[in-house]
Amino acid sequence: MKKANAVYAQSGGVTSVINGSAYGVIKAAQEANFIDNIYGGLFGINGVLEENLVDIAQENPADIENLPFTPSGAFGSCRKKLPSLEKNRTDFERIIDVFKAHDVRYFFYNGGNDSMDTAYKISLLGKEMGYDVTCIGVPKTVDNDLPITDNCPGFGSVAKYNAVSLREASFDVASMHHDSTKVFVAETMGRHAGWIAASAGMAAKTESDGPHVILLPEIVFDSGKFLAEVERVIQKVGFCVVVVSEGAQGADGKFIADSGTVDGFGHTQLGGAGSFIAELVKHQLKLKVHNALPDYFQRAGRHIASKTDLDQAIAVGREAVRLAGEGLNGEMVTIVRESNSPYQWSVGHTDIANIANKEKVLPPEYIREDGLHITPAFREYCEPLITGEIFPKFERGLPVYSKLKRNLIPKILG
Amino acid sequence: MKKANAVYAQSGGVTSVINGSAYGVIKAAQEANFIDNIYGGLFGINGVLEENLVDIAQENPADIENLPFTPSGAFGSCRKKLPSLEKNRTDFERIIDVFKAHDVRYFFYNGGNDSMDTAYKISLLGKEMGYDVTCIGVPKTVDNDLPITDNCPGFGSVAKYNAVSLREASFDVASMHHDSTKVFVAETMGRHAGWIAASAGMAAKTESDGPHVILLPEIVFDSGKFLAEVERVIQKVGFCVVVVSEGAQGADGKFIADSGTVDGFGHTQLGGAGSFIAELVKHQLKLKVHNALPDYFQRAGRHIASKTDLDQAIAVGREAVRLAGEGLNGEMVTIVRESNSPYQWSVGHTDIANIANKEKVLPPEYIREDGLHITPAFREYCEPLITGEIFPKFERGLPVYSKLKRNLIPKILG
Repeated sequence: MKKANAVYAQSGGVTSVINGSAYGVIKAAQEANFIDNIYGGLFGINGVLEENLVDIAQENPADIENLPFTPSGAFGSCRKKLPSLEKNRTDFERIIDVFKAHDVRYFFYNGGNDSMDTAYKISLLGKEMGYDVTCIGVPKTVDNDLPITDNCPGFGSVAKYNAVSLREASFDVASMHHDSTKVFVAETMGRHAGWIAASAGMAAKTESDGPHVILLPEIVFDSGKFLAEVERVIQKVGFCVVVVSEGAQGADGKFIADSGTVDGFGHTQLGGAGSFIAELVKHQLKLKVHNALPDYFQRAGRHIASKTDLDQAIAVGREAVRLAGEGLNGEMVTIVRESNSPYQWSVGHTDIANIANKEKVLPPEYIREDGLHITPAFREYCEPLITGEIFPKFERGLPVYSKLKRNLIPKILG
Repeated sequence: MKKANAVYAQSGGVTSVINGSAYGVIKAAQEANFIDNIYGGLFGINGVLEENLVDIAQENPADIENLPFTPSGAFGSCRKKLPSLEKNRTDFERIIDVFKAHDVRYFFYNGGNDSMDTAYKISLLGKEMGYDVTCIGVPKTVDNDLPITDNCPGFGSVAKYNAVSLREASFDVASMHHDSTKVFVAETMGRHAGWIAASAGMAAKTESDGPHVILLPEIVFDSGKFLAEVERVIQKVGFCVVVVSEGAQGADGKFIADSGTVDGFGHTQLGGAGSFIAELVKHQLKLKVHNALPDYFQRAGRHIASKTDLDQAIAVGREAVRLAGEGLNGEMVTIVRESNSPYQWSVGHTDIANIANKEKVLPPEYIREDGLHITPAFREYCEPLITGEIFPKFERGLPVYSKLKRNLIPKILG
């Protein structure tokens, strides 16, 4: 096997543990006898297109060791989705040219559906252009919506963040509801699948614990049914905690977040499923409502990351390098659930074509019959993924996170 | 000294560590030779008015020991502000009657400005009615706006929550800004004082770290100046992280949160300084913006509480009982800063009249000259308050929090 260089790049919305995968790739690449240098793409695929390749060898080793404890994308991420190969080959050809110029034969792309699509196309085009590049996908998405893999690194931590926060906020409302806030609404991420919203349900140990109602994108939002459930819960418990996915939709297929809130400038405001629900409750039920929107806090909340999630993030990074060494190409690493109790998992792999641009939504067996909460089957699925704590180091009250130098290797193409 | 019963009650918005004060009062009361039984007011002063007194002796000792690890108000809190003594004596007379009926001679009220006002009036009326009740105030408020005391239990933890979350979210935006989110806005609590918003500034170690801009209620909001600063930061750093206090106000003295956002129902929507700022940036600077509203998550975030804060919360609870034993009345416990480095503190006390209905805002020396960030002096003040971690116990991925039985003692008055 010819020794060559490798590029690792991060893509899409970042997570609490994506740098754990970076760490796994880097460590395994440094150990691999078929990899010469490992470079980081600065801001994902942009770094390849712009020939901005970070020389990881120049980083402080302590910063690399602290990557698993650092949220966000240490090399920078991107939202760039490359066009289809048929419509526009320029970007892909440029990628191959940059790889050629820097003797890059291995590309590890760490992302979600879109990123797997990009990796897949690069591996196809390389073959076609007679420059073999081994492309291995490293899964990452808080949305947990990739098919084949049992779960996606990033999800366990966002799930833990939301479950912990909802337990805490529910305790808060429980103490205030006697003569103050009666309803609390929290909006979670997850535009197309309800995994994150569902995970917040883990906070409730009994029926009287919050969250009491979960609004999922998989279930058509019915305001009458929803308000009746809120009233029923308040009657029984005294207060009601609601979780709504940013992707919750009405019968018209429109996001409820787009229901026409008009801001102070007279523009229709997008986003805000949580504030829509809060206003609905306030005006229809005349109750005091509070609402929270954790937004990036939830996916960057490394301080409360799941140990299982971090372990898996590191493992999929390492496995990607191992697969490349085995001569595989166009594959994505997967997580395989071996057993539930005790929870056991291993890493596997699948053809990237099985992943690219596909979404796995919450299956019906994870949604309570009335559509407004989770089932014991979902609890069994989710619990091991949020289990375990691995706190960052703190200094003077704050977590210590790595900031890389990101020195670039000299450009050849310019 | 005549042995009699004591009531402890929680008031106002709850915090991550108010149950630490409950724990301090309960343990000290159980050890005190002048206190017979210690009862908890169910939902604050409501519990006294409604003769709903929790029999703490019936609680599981393990649940009491876990109170310092449990956020929210374990006995329930309240938003009830009693009327002035001159206008309406009924409520106060009722309180004295309930105390008389249950031989309660000690009242420990754990709250902010309003609660100190209530405690003060009870101590006055008791004297007038010939039934001596010793009232000691136990400070608590995330807002940190009580005068005399160096800081208020609850603040250190909400400060730590926000500083940690802003550091994490800033890392997130730093990785996304190349071709996605350029501005991130987070709204903190603090309707009348900027302590919480300022504390989020602790996340920034250097000028290029987020948050880059902090909008405080103490400084009149000037949109032109603000937008110019956002543009300057983006020019320099590539992205901009903004913290806005819910209490930020314009030159007209109105909350910017009330600037006329109209919801989907056509009603003017209150609350939302963060979404106002996010919309302003989006429309004026045409940039991609995200915004977060942690709301109750911030004050209930026990999982990331400050150890200093918890230590102080327990200490002020214990001290309240000690002061009662010394024969003091109408006093509130305070925290006294002895030195900054090393940070040393002790407990003191002051006449409740010095506290009741007074607010301490952020002094000018803690605000940067341009009004848009904090000073090194504020950092020196805040750092010890967020220092130290004391995580709760976790079980199956989630923190274990105490839920009290809250069995009531038999009513006598009914």
